[in-house]
Amino acid sequence: MNIIDIILKKKNKQELTKEELEFVINGYVNNEIPDYQVSSLLMAIVLNGMTLKETIDLTDVMLNSGEIINLDLPDLVDKHSTGGVGDKTTLILGPIVAASGVNVAKMSGRGLGHTGGTIDKLESIKGFQVSLEREEFIKQVKEIGLSVISQSGNIVPADKKIYALRDVTGTVESIPLIASSIMSKKIASGAQNIVIDVKVGNGALMKNEEDAKTLAKTMIRIGESYNRKVVCVLTNMDVPLGKNIGNGLEVLESIEVLKGNGPKDLEMLCLRLGSIMVSMAKNISEEEAYNVVKENLDNGKALAKFYEFIAYQKGDINNISISNNIISIKSKEEGFITHIDTEKLGEIVKNIGGGRTNKEDSIDYGVGIVLNKKVGDLVFENEELVKVYISDKDLKINELLDCFTISEEAPKKANLVIDIIR
Amino acid sequence: MNIIDIILKKKNKQELTKEELEFVINGYVNNEIPDYQVSSLLMAIVLNGMTLKETIDLTDVMLNSGEIINLDLPDLVDKHSTGGVGDKTTLILGPIVAASGVNVAKMSGRGLGHTGGTIDKLESIKGFQVSLEREEFIKQVKEIGLSVISQSGNIVPADKKIYALRDVTGTVESIPLIASSIMSKKIASGAQNIVIDVKVGNGALMKNEEDAKTLAKTMIRIGESYNRKVVCVLTNMDVPLGKNIGNGLEVLESIEVLKGNGPKDLEMLCLRLGSIMVSMAKNISEEEAYNVVKENLDNGKALAKFYEFIAYQKGDINNISISNNIISIKSKEEGFITHIDTEKLGEIVKNIGGGRTNKEDSIDYGVGIVLNKKVGDLVFENEELVKVYISDKDLKINELLDCFTISEEAPKKANLVIDIIR
Repeated sequence: MNIIDIILKKKNKQELTKEELEFVINGYVNNEIPDYQVSSLLMAIVLNGMTLKETIDLTDVMLNSGEIINLDLPDLVDKHSTGGVGDKTTLILGPIVAASGVNVAKMSGRGLGHTGGTIDKLESIKGFQVSLEREEFIKQVKEIGLSVISQSGNIVPADKKIYALRDVTGTVESIPLIASSIMSKKIASGAQNIVIDVKVGNGALMKNEEDAKTLAKTMIRIGESYNRKVVCVLTNMDVPLGKNIGNGLEVLESIEVLKGNGPKDLEMLCLRLGSIMVSMAKNISEEEAYNVVKENLDNGKALAKFYEFIAYQKGDINNISISNNIISIKSKEEGFITHIDTEKLGEIVKNIGGGRTNKEDSIDYGVGIVLNKKVGDLVFENEELVKVYISDKDLKINELLDCFTISEEAPKKANLVIDIIR
Repeated sequence: MNIIDIILKKKNKQELTKEELEFVINGYVNNEIPDYQVSSLLMAIVLNGMTLKETIDLTDVMLNSGEIINLDLPDLVDKHSTGGVGDKTTLILGPIVAASGVNVAKMSGRGLGHTGGTIDKLESIKGFQVSLEREEFIKQVKEIGLSVISQSGNIVPADKKIYALRDVTGTVESIPLIASSIMSKKIASGAQNIVIDVKVGNGALMKNEEDAKTLAKTMIRIGESYNRKVVCVLTNMDVPLGKNIGNGLEVLESIEVLKGNGPKDLEMLCLRLGSIMVSMAKNISEEEAYNVVKENLDNGKALAKFYEFIAYQKGDINNISISNNIISIKSKEEGFITHIDTEKLGEIVKNIGGGRTNKEDSIDYGVGIVLNKKVGDLVFENEELVKVYISDKDLKINELLDCFTISEEAPKKANLVIDIIR
């Protein structure tokens, strides 16, 4: 077998065999095949696609490149987001679902590019431990029903290497590559029930609904081939989720939601995702599950579970990184906000220190943006649009103002949940 | 400017600007952009193509990556072949054209993959000097009208680096990349008149006539933008050219053609290409030019020019590398030869030591294959198909026999010259 022949096969739109995919992925992980050959193949995959069979085979090859975890915990449910701006749902959902009697043993990632990562958000809480030994992790889930840790280095090492290469070679946007990357990690992490929040819009990888649906269906079919139940919820990422963007700020907003004081769109999404998770794990209807999660949010049990979880992993909830240096940015015109360039907003938070350009970059947990206005809101001249929590990096104010399109006519309200695909 | 944005632009089928192409090519030559990003872009170019404007811009950027030569010699004409198996036309054409009073100052390349290179063929002659100083080169052309040297390292360095990468990343077959690679070198080498032999068929880069025509038209349009006259001759490469494949063996066959004893198809092609070259340089009709070149072949002046040329560059014509170890391969069946897998035949000669897999490989000049039968010929059982001149490498006889398709029915004869495009 020969890597050039494999590249040419995909260049000529032919289906690769599982043996050929194994040759490429294992050869790449073992440093026998160089970056430049893999990136050429990746671009051919991006442009010529992969069949469902190839995508399932690729997932299997990736999955088997590392450790496969069996946590042996009952009623396990996992949740994944394809990545968005201001997406703090895991911090809210975890406690709601755990308070409803369903085990959440979650391995999360760090942020890269304009999207954030749950692990970075949790690390904005002083002392919070993101690395636990397997036994501690299982013990915690058994005792309090919830643990969130950093993904083990041994889970799908092939994905780590390939993702880093895709990130710098313009080969991120590909449904088979995204589906196999997500599903190999979810399946290796062990959960039988998986809810995937597929973000759609200008702040997400999937820019339109059609692509998001294809991605969802591909992931569901991959799940089927491993006997995993997968439900995909397509949600709008044309606007940031909630009002806070930035690690510490998102923890604060999550607590507000758990207290019942958060933005209603974010609360609604968490209740919806939570009821799907509980319904899958307990095998009850979603309506029934909704009543359970709503009750546990309203009665404060979810908030208590959050505090219990943070304390268990040694976090000091009274010590969350938030910058003291706050700049209020005011609108220069009056009108309705018709559009927010969400990806750019994510980039700005990254650039003021809240995210990474390279995997090795360190993060400033205290910086971020709080939106005072969202799409559909009326803003007056000189009224505050956003608050920026800043530290030692410069803010480009005009770039920030350019993220907001203001017009005389009010826009149509978009639904946050676009579709649910099972 | 950012390389990832440029890759994404081409991925999305957009036209790159000249500034963007400069950024990529110069960045790559200066080692500021890594292989893996360029190979991803190259695959996007292979699959999404380039406009004529992009192709001309790319040629210009490549051209300006190195030295541009002005030889200041009258009536200069250059000839290039897109590469085939058994293609020794330069060795025959050079003397014919020079004997007809037209200066040939040619910089040639070495072989790579299944196709040979003129410089390797000349080096099979003991003592032959392929590297000359610019002044010696010009002096020789002024004195005897003909010199062939190895391409200077400073001519289009970008092409060297990009070609080496294309070769190992499955991105060789692309009309804009091939056209800009050939034309940047031809224009940098200085000739005003350029004849390009575009090989078409199973032993060539262009597998079909349509692609070959597009390549030809693209190169002519690039030439126009530099005020160069370009004529493309599309010739059949479904069979090797002539009967001998292998460096020393091809020199022997060239001498036979110059003596009037060579294969008629090869002689005819050389007369045809030669009359186009002479007609362009002297600005006379091709019929007139044909009479001149035919006369100089028939009267022995071309042969004498060949000997003069070899001696001038210190080659000993009585000492050509030819292996003594000759294996006769006989047909296992009777019938007409309907097809020869020419690319594979080229690969076999490469594998027995006659060519290179990597640029650093050394060559065995004495090995090769002499065809006793070609497409259309009748062969009897146990009659000789080919002679193999071998040295220390193993020959896979069945692989060699598999190159010949033998059938009861005689095939239609194909024309060697398919089309001439101006």
